[in-house]
Amino acid sequence: MSRKRVTSIDVAKAAGVSQSVVSRAFTPGAKVAAKTREHVLGVAKELGYQPSALARGLVKQDSNLVAILTKASRNPIHNQVLHQLSEGLQAIGKQSLLIQGDNESEVSQLLEAARQYQVQAVIVLSISLSSNLASEFANTGIPIILFNRYLGSSLHNNNLPTSLPKGSGYFTVACDNRHGGRIIAENFLRAGHERFAFIGGQPDTSTNQDRRLGFIEALGERNISLSYSLEQSYSYDWGREAANMIFSRSSKPDALFCANDLIALGALDALRLEHKVSVPQDVAVVGFDDIEAAGWLSYRLTTVKQPLKAMVEQSIDFIDNRLNSILEESEVQLIKGEFIERDTTLPTMPTARAKAWS
Amino acid sequence: MSRKRVTSIDVAKAAGVSQSVVSRAFTPGAKVAAKTREHVLGVAKELGYQPSALARGLVKQDSNLVAILTKASRNPIHNQVLHQLSEGLQAIGKQSLLIQGDNESEVSQLLEAARQYQVQAVIVLSISLSSNLASEFANTGIPIILFNRYLGSSLHNNNLPTSLPKGSGYFTVACDNRHGGRIIAENFLRAGHERFAFIGGQPDTSTNQDRRLGFIEALGERNISLSYSLEQSYSYDWGREAANMIFSRSSKPDALFCANDLIALGALDALRLEHKVSVPQDVAVVGFDDIEAAGWLSYRLTTVKQPLKAMVEQSIDFIDNRLNSILEESEVQLIKGEFIERDTTLPTMPTARAKAWS
Repeated sequence: MSRKRVTSIDVAKAAGVSQSVVSRAFTPGAKVAAKTREHVLGVAKELGYQPSALARGLVKQDSNLVAILTKASRNPIHNQVLHQLSEGLQAIGKQSLLIQGDNESEVSQLLEAARQYQVQAVIVLSISLSSNLASEFANTGIPIILFNRYLGSSLHNNNLPTSLPKGSGYFTVACDNRHGGRIIAENFLRAGHERFAFIGGQPDTSTNQDRRLGFIEALGERNISLSYSLEQSYSYDWGREAANMIFSRSSKPDALFCANDLIALGALDALRLEHKVSVPQDVAVVGFDDIEAAGWLSYRLTTVKQPLKAMVEQSIDFIDNRLNSILEESEVQLIKGEFIERDTTLPTMPTARAKAWS
Repeated sequence: MSRKRVTSIDVAKAAGVSQSVVSRAFTPGAKVAAKTREHVLGVAKELGYQPSALARGLVKQDSNLVAILTKASRNPIHNQVLHQLSEGLQAIGKQSLLIQGDNESEVSQLLEAARQYQVQAVIVLSISLSSNLASEFANTGIPIILFNRYLGSSLHNNNLPTSLPKGSGYFTVACDNRHGGRIIAENFLRAGHERFAFIGGQPDTSTNQDRRLGFIEALGERNISLSYSLEQSYSYDWGREAANMIFSRSSKPDALFCANDLIALGALDALRLEHKVSVPQDVAVVGFDDIEAAGWLSYRLTTVKQPLKAMVEQSIDFIDNRLNSILEESEVQLIKGEFIERDTTLPTMPTARAKAWS
C-alpha cells in the first residue's frame, strides 16, 4: 500500500469527468447533476479520496483551525481547560492547532506560524501577556480570546491598555478572581479569624493580583490588614517554602489564603508535617481552583472552584457566533467561582462570634 | 483595522510584479533576481503579507502538521507528554493538530478530519487501540506512532495482529513496562516481603498487562504467586477503593504494587488514614510513573519513573528522519524506567535476609 494520496485528478480520470466536476460534487450546494454527484462520490470512495481541508481553507479563506497558545504547566487546571476547549472546538466543526511557547520571543515566532495556517482565532491559555506581545497580537488581525487572563496588570484598576488599534479588541473570559478572594476573606471573618496571611503565585499575573485584591479589600472594610504577603510562583514547592518562612516566625497567622491549590497543598504539608500545626484549629487554609488533589483524603482542602465549564462554553460560543463581529473595544466576561468547604477551614458562625464583627 | 487578510495578489499589485514572482520570492531556492526578491519581500512586509502554510501544504503535499490523538486524562503524565511532543514537533518545524476522542466511533471520525488536513503523521496518546480502529488507521496510509501503547493486548505474548496491509507497520515507543513490573518485584523480594498484592488500572491496556506480567513473572521465579490482584481503572478513587477491599480482609499483604502513581496515592491514603496501617513497616507500596505528587511530603512514594524524555525524543526523531521509510512491519522501541526509592518501601537488604532468597 502506497502512502501517496489520491488526488481529485485521479478521481476525475477514473470517473471520466473533469476535475472541476469532482470539486463541485464535494461542495454542498454546488451545481452538479444528482446522478453525476452520486457517480463521483462512489468512485471517490472506492479510491479512498478525501477532499482536502487545506484546499477548502485556501479557497474560502477559512481553515477551520483555531490556535491554542499554551505552555507546559504543572497546574492540572490548565490541562483540563486545554482538553475542554479542544473538545468544544471539535463540536463546532473546528480543529485545534496547539502552539507551545515559554518566552515572549518564542510566542511571537509561533504566532507567525499560526498566521501562516490561517487560523480563525487564537485562544491564549496559561501564558502571560506583556503589552509588547499584546500589540503584536493586535497587528495580526486575528481575533484573540484571552482565557482567565487580562491585558494589563489588573482589570479592576482600569489599567487596560487603551492604545490598541481600533477594532482589535480582545474577548476575555475569566473567573471573577477578585470576587473569589473576597468570599474567602468573608468566610475567614465569619469563622472568627484575626490574623491573615496570603501566599501568592506569579506576582505579575492578573489571576494573582485580582485574588489578592479581593481578599485585601474585604479585610480592609473591617480595617484589617494582611500580616504576611509572599508571592512567587504557582507551585507546591513555593507553598511549602513560604509556609515554612511564615511559621518559623513568632507571630503566626490563624488564616491563610493561598492563590491556588498547588500552593495550598505545599503549605498544608509544611504546616502539618514540618511544623506540627493543627489545620484548621491553629490555622485555616483555603486554596483556589479545585483541582482533583484538593479532594484527596490527605488534604481535603477548602477552595474556590473555578467555573471552567462555563468559561469554556463562553469561549466556544464566541468563536462559533461572533468571530466576524469586530470588537471595537475589549470585552470581558467574568464568571463567579463557587466556595467549596472541606476540612481545612472552621465552620462559619452565623450567630455568636460573627456578631462581634457586625 | 480590517480582518481581511492580505493576499499574494495584493502584494503583486503593489510591487508591480506578477503573482508568480511573489510566490517565487517566498520560496527558498526558487528562480528570481535577488533585487526583485528584496523588493517583493519589502512590499510584503509593509502590507503585512505572510505566505500561506495551507497553500504550501497543498502544493507540496506537505502540510507540516502532525496530529496528536488524545483524550482528557487525570494522569499528569499524559499532559506532560502532550506538551513535550508538541514542543518537539515545533523544534523540527512542525505544528500539532490536537484531536480529542473518547470512544472509538468518535476517534474514527476525527481521524478523517486529520486526513483532510493532510497531516504527515498521527501520534496516538492516551487512547486505547482496538483492532478495528487499528486497521482503520492502517487504511489511511498515514504513518502512525503509538506512544506507550502497543497493538493487541500484550507485546510479549506475540499477539500483535499480523494481518495488517503490507507497508502499514506502526512505530511504537514505550516504557519497558514489563521490566518495570519485574524490578518492583525484585525490590520487594530483596526487602524480605512475602505476601504480594497488585492493584491494576484499566485491564485491557498494554501498560496494565505488561506491568502486571513482569511483576508476576519475577515472583513466579521464586514460586510465589499473587495474594490479591484487582484491576479496574487508573485513578486515585479506584486505588483507595481497592486498598479498602484488600485491607478489610483478615489476610493482608505486606507488599503492594499499584499500576500507576494515582492508584498508589489513593491506596496510601486508604491504608494510612482509613486503616491506620503503617507504611512501609506493615505494608510497602510502589507506584508507576513518577508524577509530581509522588514526591509530595504527604506521600513520598517509591515508584518507577517513566523515561518520558527519551520516549519523546525517539518519537520526534522518527517523524523527523524516517517518515518516508515505509515500515513493512511494526517496530517497537522499549526504554527502561528508573526505580525511584522514597519512603513507602523498606530498605533492601543485600546481605542477611536477602540471602534466604538466593
